[in-house]
Amino acid sequence: MAKQDRAIRTRRVILAAAAKVFEARGFQAATINEILREAGVTKGALYFHFPSKEHLAQGVLLEQDQQGGVQDQACKVQEFIDTVMLHAYRLQTDPMVRAGVRLSLDQQAHGLDRSGPFVRWSQIVRKLLSEAYEQGELLPQVVVTETADVAVGAFAGVQAMSQAMCDHNDLLVRVSAMLRHLLPSVAHPSVLTTVEMGADRGEAVARSLEWSEPREPAEVS
Amino acid sequence: MAKQDRAIRTRRVILAAAAKVFEARGFQAATINEILREAGVTKGALYFHFPSKEHLAQGVLLEQDQQGGVQDQACKVQEFIDTVMLHAYRLQTDPMVRAGVRLSLDQQAHGLDRSGPFVRWSQIVRKLLSEAYEQGELLPQVVVTETADVAVGAFAGVQAMSQAMCDHNDLLVRVSAMLRHLLPSVAHPSVLTTVEMGADRGEAVARSLEWSEPREPAEVS
Repeated sequence: MAKQDRAIRTRRVILAAAAKVFEARGFQAATINEILREAGVTKGALYFHFPSKEHLAQGVLLEQDQQGGVQDQACKVQEFIDTVMLHAYRLQTDPMVRAGVRLSLDQQAHGLDRSGPFVRWSQIVRKLLSEAYEQGELLPQVVVTETADVAVGAFAGVQAMSQAMCDHNDLLVRVSAMLRHLLPSVAHPSVLTTVEMGADRGEAVARSLEWSEPREPAEVS
Repeated sequence: MAKQDRAIRTRRVILAAAAKVFEARGFQAATINEILREAGVTKGALYFHFPSKEHLAQGVLLEQDQQGGVQDQACKVQEFIDTVMLHAYRLQTDPMVRAGVRLSLDQQAHGLDRSGPFVRWSQIVRKLLSEAYEQGELLPQVVVTETADVAVGAFAGVQAMSQAMCDHNDLLVRVSAMLRHLLPSVAHPSVLTTVEMGADRGEAVARSLEWSEPREPAEVS
């Protein structure tokens, strides 16, 4: 048991080091030796967990999707907004999330499954929007799968633009604006008047999570 | 004059070759020698026009923004839609546009001004939306600069998602869905009922341009 705990901790240390190196250098320029130096583990330990640089990158991509989600909420549109704003906030502040997004958009990263994060995020958003639809929060003509893909794609580009323009400094303002533009064609007007989607929403959600019990990440099959 | 014509033609040949190589290999992996072979020009000619790989990439990025725009239209929201759908159509079909977008999102491409295409597209969209606003086509609460940036960012991500999922095969369907999601919070309902924004709109606009006079690209200062 203690041995298993140690293995889990070592795996986390390696992934954190890989995230740092991938974020700074990109997939192609990053080397296993840099990640080894950053992690301070033995070569044997690293190769036990991750047989190649591709496995390390996949590990980072998976890890960023496994972060705990927001609390269940009565209003599913608010839960969707909070999920998006929390991710934007983490993108500004969490190296694992930053590295994951960089790898996803890193077109040099041949051999990586770049569609993975899009597919997983799309599943998370579809689930939330389906629940919102069933509760009558969405407009009747909404096609949940289509709206989820538009939201996930739009988010990916808005963050890329914010990064290119000012290294993510205005990310929260841009994502808030994106939601204000998308939601009127998706949610009932009565829902829109009650939800909060200001630029400060992500940090508020992150703070509220610090005060609550740790929670398993949402299961995505 | 004939000499100048030849120089312009050589420049175009080099840029077309650079676009092909950058699109296939990415900025970092591409070499000037590959571009030379592809272009079939002398090393002297290439270096006369483009002193470095960075200059070649900037040339491609600039060229994709210089493509002729759509015809002036009475309804500026339709002109905005047509500009977006035509760009999506060219992204599926034109190597220069594909290479330009790849370079813009290519995070390995250190030393390139990656914000350039975002800024230039934002200016094009701001101009169209400002005209639409002045003509009373937009909702009064719209902030044109904000809406333009949301649209440009969202487009960039929707195309990246379409590329990652299926190499742009469903791009026109996704961009059409994006517009249907964004425009209800931007344009007057009476305008929305009259505009065309189906997935086949880009090809229709491209075909109509083939039959009209060649037109100078829209000036962006």
